[in-house]
Amino acid sequence: MLKPLGDRIVVKFEEVEETTASGFVLAGSSHEATKAATVLAVGPGSRTLHGDLIAPSVAQGDKVLVENGAGLDVKDGDDKFSIIREADILAVLD
Amino acid sequence: MLKPLGDRIVVKFEEVEETTASGFVLAGSSHEATKAATVLAVGPGSRTLHGDLIAPSVAQGDKVLVENGAGLDVKDGDDKFSIIREADILAVLD
Amino acid sequence: MLKPLGDRIVVKFEEVEETTASGFVLAGSSHEATKAATVLAVGPGSRTLHGDLIAPSVAQGDKVLVENGAGLDVKDGDDKFSIIREADILAVLD
Amino acid sequence: MLKPLGDRIVVKFEEVEETTASGFVLAGSSHEATKAATVLAVGPGSRTLHGDLIAPSVAQGDKVLVENGAGLDVKDGDDKFSIIREADILAVLD
Amino acid sequence: MLKPLGDRIVVKFEEVEETTASGFVLAGSSHEATKAATVLAVGPGSRTLHGDLIAPSVAQGDKVLVENGAGLDVKDGDDKFSIIREADILAVLD
Amino acid sequence: MLKPLGDRIVVKFEEVEETTASGFVLAGSSHEATKAATVLAVGPGSRTLHGDLIAPSVAQGDKVLVENGAGLDVKDGDDKFSIIREADILAVLD
Amino acid sequence: MLKPLGDRIVVKFEEVEETTASGFVLAGSSHEATKAATVLAVGPGSRTLHGDLIAPSVAQGDKVLVENGAGLDVKDGDDKFSIIREADILAVLD
Repeated sequence: MLKPLGDRIVVKFEEVEETTASGFVLAGSSHEATKAATVLAVGPGSRTLHGDLIAPSVAQGDKVLVENGAGLDVKDGDDKFSIIREADILAVLD
Repeated sequence: MLKPLGDRIVVKFEEVEETTASGFVLAGSSHEATKAATVLAVGPGSRTLHGDLIAPSVAQGDKVLVENGAGLDVKDGDDKFSIIREADILAVLD
Repeated sequence: MLKPLGDRIVVKFEEVEETTASGFVLAGSSHEATKAATVLAVGPGSRTLHGDLIAPSVAQGDKVLVENGAGLDVKDGDDKFSIIREADILAVLD
Repeated sequence: MLKPLGDRIVVKFEEVEETTASGFVLAGSSHEATKAATVLAVGPGSRTLHGDLIAPSVAQGDKVLVENGAGLDVKDGDDKFSIIREADILAVLD
Repeated sequence: MLKPLGDRIVVKFEEVEETTASGFVLAGSSHEATKAATVLAVGPGSRTLHGDLIAPSVAQGDKVLVENGAGLDVKDGDDKFSIIREADILAVLD
Repeated sequence: MLKPLGDRIVVKFEEVEETTASGFVLAGSSHEATKAATVLAVGPGSRTLHGDLIAPSVAQGDKVLVENGAGLDVKDGDDKFSIIREADILAVLD
Repeated sequence: MLKPLGDRIVVKFEEVEETTASGFVLAGSSHEATKAATVLAVGPGSRTLHGDLIAPSVAQGDKVLVENGAGLDVKDGDDKFSIIREADILAVLD
């Protein structure tokens, strides 16, 4: 298991299969400004200038909207997830 | 529903249909410096360097003037709205 | 009416008609470093790092000197005014 | 009269007439790193991160040395002065 | 032995041998966004703006995931390790 | 006399005459990373974010080592000195 | 003697003579990411935003590992040393 540090958050982006007009199947949608993801693990949070922790505002299991292009990909065998920062999360989807 | 994080705010920009001299109909007006929008949802606010929250100065339902070009577009079926930051709001329209 | 947010200020720039040597009439003077304006509305002010408000140092009705090029134009029918930041105001004209 | 805001200071630069080897008379000296000026009016000062004012360290009537190129020119009829920031003043001339 | 200063951390990156389709053997994998490493030594931590130390959140022996490209290489005879900053560590691998 | 403001310091750089291999005499040495200077006058010091003064760590008469290229030249008749910032001083020469 | 100011530190880099395959002797090794050095003198330290000193974490005589390319060279007759900042020191060599 991955325990993210600081304000980092491990997410799994939703795979959106898309079929182009000419029939090609594209995995993922890179031409949107935002992407949906599920939160897998949450770091302890960021720190104020005085060193106090600010608890993250999302929790494991939350569905979130993330700025497209954010995060670093991590592979674990066939599994693929991403490590983003809390600031990359725009909103929680209820 | 979308619950924006931090100082983010979900807005719906006003669609301004415009007819050019030669008769073309343009959706939206990209040549203005500002755009009008309605606030749909408001995040908890930004934080001071000590970690205290500053409540946002707009509320759901407010009509606001936003700097043109600000925000990320989000689609929900046929619905289209935008996630901006409180600092992108120039003024509230009474 | 426009209620500016934060340290923003709504002003109306003075129209200075100018006649060139060859007789052209130019509206406004874009070749000066500063422009005169009248304050129409004032935001609540900027915030310190601790989140305290600093009240703006100009008030509605003040005549001010503004750095040229500052601000975003807003149109309201035939009326035209500008939203600037308090820091764009160089001085108050007594 | 001009009442400068914040850490701004109204100064009048010394006119230095200069004659080139070939006889041209140049007003002002743009090839020096510094320029002498007289302080005409002083703003309330800059603010700390906590919002406290720091009183400016020059006063009306002071002769000061200013970094060349600093400031914005303001014309009042035939009168010409400049608005600089306190940080543009290198030293007071006794 | 190396005693890292501040928020610096001495790590040994995992060597991942890789065989390309055409049979070349590549040492290390430079085309991933992240790399696994083992923590060898930990500095006293970073400091808040008030000068207080924030203890690092990893310890000697931890397996960590590091942003690819981070750190400076240090050679000690045939041994090779890297000095990174705590902020380059994305997550601890349990 | 010049009274420097803030963290500024008036210095006189040491003139180092240098003779090139071909016999040219060069005044000053621009190809070194540092230059020696004598402190002529010292400002009140820089300010912390709370507005408190930090007294400068050099005094009038000190011989100092300054980063080459730092400072603005000031001429007073035939006299030539420079105004630098305290941060441009690398070390005091005992 | 040199008394460094602030967070500056006077070091002497280790001269590493190196012989290339074709027999050239190179003084120093510029193709490493780090260089070893001995601390000769230490400044009083850096300051927090409140103006408090943070004592440096190295002392005279320490052997340290420094980021290559850091520092300014100072010559004293035939002697050559460098002035670096504490942040350029990666680790202390025990």
